[in-house]
Amino acid sequence: MAGEGVDPAAFMSRALELAERGRGRVEPNPMVGAVVVRDGRIVGEGFHECFGAPHAEPNAIAAAGEACRGATLYVSLEPCTHYGKTPPCVPAIVAAGFARVVAAMVDPDPRNQGRGIEQLRQAGIEVEVGLLEPAAQRLNAPFVKLTTRGLPYVTAKWAMSLDGKTATRLGDSRWISSAPARELVHTLRGQADAVLIGVGTALADDPLLTARPPGARVPARIVADDQARLPIYSQLVQTIGEAPLIVATTEAAPRERRSALAAKGAEILVLPAQRGGVSLRALMAELGLRRMTHVLLEGGGELCAAALAAGVVDKVLAFVAPKVIGGRDARTPVEGDGVLTVAQALEARDWSVRRVGDDTLIEAWL
Amino acid sequence: MAGEGVDPAAFMSRALELAERGRGRVEPNPMVGAVVVRDGRIVGEGFHECFGAPHAEPNAIAAAGEACRGATLYVSLEPCTHYGKTPPCVPAIVAAGFARVVAAMVDPDPRNQGRGIEQLRQAGIEVEVGLLEPAAQRLNAPFVKLTTRGLPYVTAKWAMSLDGKTATRLGDSRWISSAPARELVHTLRGQADAVLIGVGTALADDPLLTARPPGARVPARIVADDQARLPIYSQLVQTIGEAPLIVATTEAAPRERRSALAAKGAEILVLPAQRGGVSLRALMAELGLRRMTHVLLEGGGELCAAALAAGVVDKVLAFVAPKVIGGRDARTPVEGDGVLTVAQALEARDWSVRRVGDDTLIEAWL
Repeated sequence: MAGEGVDPAAFMSRALELAERGRGRVEPNPMVGAVVVRDGRIVGEGFHECFGAPHAEPNAIAAAGEACRGATLYVSLEPCTHYGKTPPCVPAIVAAGFARVVAAMVDPDPRNQGRGIEQLRQAGIEVEVGLLEPAAQRLNAPFVKLTTRGLPYVTAKWAMSLDGKTATRLGDSRWISSAPARELVHTLRGQADAVLIGVGTALADDPLLTARPPGARVPARIVADDQARLPIYSQLVQTIGEAPLIVATTEAAPRERRSALAAKGAEILVLPAQRGGVSLRALMAELGLRRMTHVLLEGGGELCAAALAAGVVDKVLAFVAPKVIGGRDARTPVEGDGVLTVAQALEARDWSVRRVGDDTLIEAWL
Repeated sequence: MAGEGVDPAAFMSRALELAERGRGRVEPNPMVGAVVVRDGRIVGEGFHECFGAPHAEPNAIAAAGEACRGATLYVSLEPCTHYGKTPPCVPAIVAAGFARVVAAMVDPDPRNQGRGIEQLRQAGIEVEVGLLEPAAQRLNAPFVKLTTRGLPYVTAKWAMSLDGKTATRLGDSRWISSAPARELVHTLRGQADAVLIGVGTALADDPLLTARPPGARVPARIVADDQARLPIYSQLVQTIGEAPLIVATTEAAPRERRSALAAKGAEILVLPAQRGGVSLRALMAELGLRRMTHVLLEGGGELCAAALAAGVVDKVLAFVAPKVIGGRDARTPVEGDGVLTVAQALEARDWSVRRVGDDTLIEAWL
């Protein structure tokens, strides 16, 4: 059936590329891309553009029109069978007259989970599943985690010197990474549901944590702050009008501090304590209930250590700058107590490296 | 003159590749490669194979034989005019009848330094200098430093986790980097004149510091040990028969400790003190006098900090392993006091990244 030069992986790759364009816009829905192929040529494309808007499949079908009849649909996720914000895709695919559907992965949504594939087969359509599945699973890892475990996907990001420092012994951290690396972080913020830091970082750096320029989403700023020490004159509090601020605290925080922050518009989230801080598991469970899909953890070292120990981190983005800071008392990306032996270290399951500006970015999946 | 498909850079690249084969064998001589090209084809090759043996040029001339007449000689360093362990190369090049010589760089040796080029031109040979000069300068950076400044080239190597730790808070460091990274370090040791550590590392890790399997050279093991605390039952002392051991110490070291180490065969080098340790500048000056060309600095963090502060480090090799150790009290590659602001950090002039086994190797030139 496939003509000379027809590469199914290339079509699926294109579908994944289209899907990616929805990042930050579609969550908590999955990113999905679809490509209509007829006689070895792409005759229509579509992707899920934003939450509430049509899915990838009807977009691709509309683009291809009559050419769908007898064609193959490459789609990065199993088509849906359920009514959500939009009608289900399976009937639309059947109606369009496709001969074949190639899906990269099964939809983990319990309302679908193989049902879409089954219904397509019952309608006499040939279905293949699993082409470029690892890439598709990685693309939608946040959606999969939220759907299957009710928890947001957490990416811990840090920027360190060649000798592993995130700040000098005086706490100065401006700027360890290069401008392009900092721009990439702003882009990532604009695709995340929330940005999380510890109160130590809030006090030391007085950051804004907004995406500049603004991205697809306005991430909530969350401060893990068991004693509610965040100053009301901090940039975070002063800019509540621009982006939400959540102070994740505990009963240990003085009532008047909580009230003062609440009076300024911060949401006060009182959570159980855990090892002398806010329970990060409880925080993530709460964010999961709010359908937050992706949280960007921006440190510091004590919060990162607590998050790694609590097992809530899915991925690390470590920027390594070609400079040496030194200092036995300088800050490092992961502090806490640490492991006792190297054999007990947390090992990445997979990782990749690329250059971003003057920095080396190591992306590691835990 | 150059025929179709003739790429002078490719010929010089080949000469540099040949030169590299002498690494660890020719020092304190430079590594040199030479290629004879006639009618756009290589008709002879040679390189400086080991200290005291013929230079690259006579080797290439011997390989090409009569084909040298009217040919071009590509050589990675200006040919020499002086008698050393072997006769000068310039007369041999003239006698062989070359029409043209292309050299990558001028020889910084004050006995030569342009004299070779001048003599070739006087003999009516066309000479071009500077093709692939940056690569040639980098290849022979240790030779250039020793020749021009009387000091060895120092490469500081460390292996750290993704969160910048070289050992857990208990001091365990086995094994942060992957087996291929550790093998590469052994290869580098076998090309170095000396391997240098601080006594803290000697006490914590009790290392051997030999190249395993043995390389081109047997590096001296040097311990910066101002108090001569190195135990006589350490592996370093117990293996003096396999490789030299130098204890770089100060007058502050008790006489009986120095005598005990000397009695075991260690060389005791009494140097001035500097900031509560051995003066590393004085150590390097001494190693330079001994014509040591390349020293591999293998830490720990206090020694690296002192070496960086003393300005004796030329290059950093940082292996980054995809694992997280954590710990506010864990060891880091560069300790000491460190800089106060990021703006004061030591910045690499140039750097490159590659994968070695499971690790990311960042090579940075200071």
